[in-house]
Amino acid sequence: MLDLNDYITSIPDFPEKGVIFRDITPLWGDPKAYAEATRRITHFAKMRDVNVVVGPESRGFLVGAPVANELGTGIVLARKPGKLPRETVSEKYTLEYGEAALEMHKDAIKPGEKVLITDDLLATGGTIAAAIKLVESLGGIVAGLAFMIELKDLNGREKLEGYDILSLMSY
Amino acid sequence: MLDLNDYITSIPDFPEKGVIFRDITPLWGDPKAYAEATRRITHFAKMRDVNVVVGPESRGFLVGAPVANELGTGIVLARKPGKLPRETVSEKYTLEYGEAALEMHKDAIKPGEKVLITDDLLATGGTIAAAIKLVESLGGIVAGLAFMIELKDLNGREKLEGYDILSLMSY
Repeated sequence: MLDLNDYITSIPDFPEKGVIFRDITPLWGDPKAYAEATRRITHFAKMRDVNVVVGPESRGFLVGAPVANELGTGIVLARKPGKLPRETVSEKYTLEYGEAALEMHKDAIKPGEKVLITDDLLATGGTIAAAIKLVESLGGIVAGLAFMIELKDLNGREKLEGYDILSLMSY
Repeated sequence: MLDLNDYITSIPDFPEKGVIFRDITPLWGDPKAYAEATRRITHFAKMRDVNVVVGPESRGFLVGAPVANELGTGIVLARKPGKLPRETVSEKYTLEYGEAALEMHKDAIKPGEKVLITDDLLATGGTIAAAIKLVESLGGIVAGLAFMIELKDLNGREKLEGYDILSLMSY
């Protein structure tokens, strides 16, 4: 069986000293590995009757878009402030240094829709916690969270307690 | 037959006065329309024996990722400077105000590979011209360019002469 870990390159000291960056681009560049990762997340979503996928900008698009395609759903964008042209809901969250925010169109999720939130990385969980709040503020049901990689030492799961999480790989 | 134009919302005066913004998010949020757009671009790529898809950050990911999935290829990321962790090639281009640059990993394209470059919008063509230069500098062959929307008044095609272009919609 294909081991997705073989398609991750670990880069020491990027973006800063002491950090090991897990580079997913070799996986995204490989037809078999990308298809396999997509299949596994799609399966997870299917089992939970997901009818819409949410991906935070921008690597969440790379995870979520092919899953939406295979699942037969649309994808809803969670973007950085000021990029969505219509009426939005907005949610702030804290980063290691400072604050950021995520926005979603107000009409992007219909009440009762079952949502899969996807991203490349589960780190501290701040972005995903914000995405969850946005989805729920619009009446959506977060049916699952799916990540390519989970960085266990950063305890992102603690922030996401009570949600159903799939991580394809963990470090 | 499904008319993709029905899934585009035109927003006057966004992001600034006098500009009509063509909002593709309703299309991406609709299972049938997104699948249809993906199918048409995939067909165009298949006819040209494409074996890798390139998408510029970040809306190019939304166009390219499901096409790669359906085509059975990988996707190569063209990103803003400083985001790719390994050795890159870089290409500057001019925007309406100032300059920007696009980067690609040096090993992302193999010489002779046939490349489809995808993006949401063909406007002035600056981003795409930079992406073409990056692909060709690595020995890739640009087999086609595919866009959701072409903004005809901005004459992007002039900058892309000699390349095979698919635009699903034009305004």
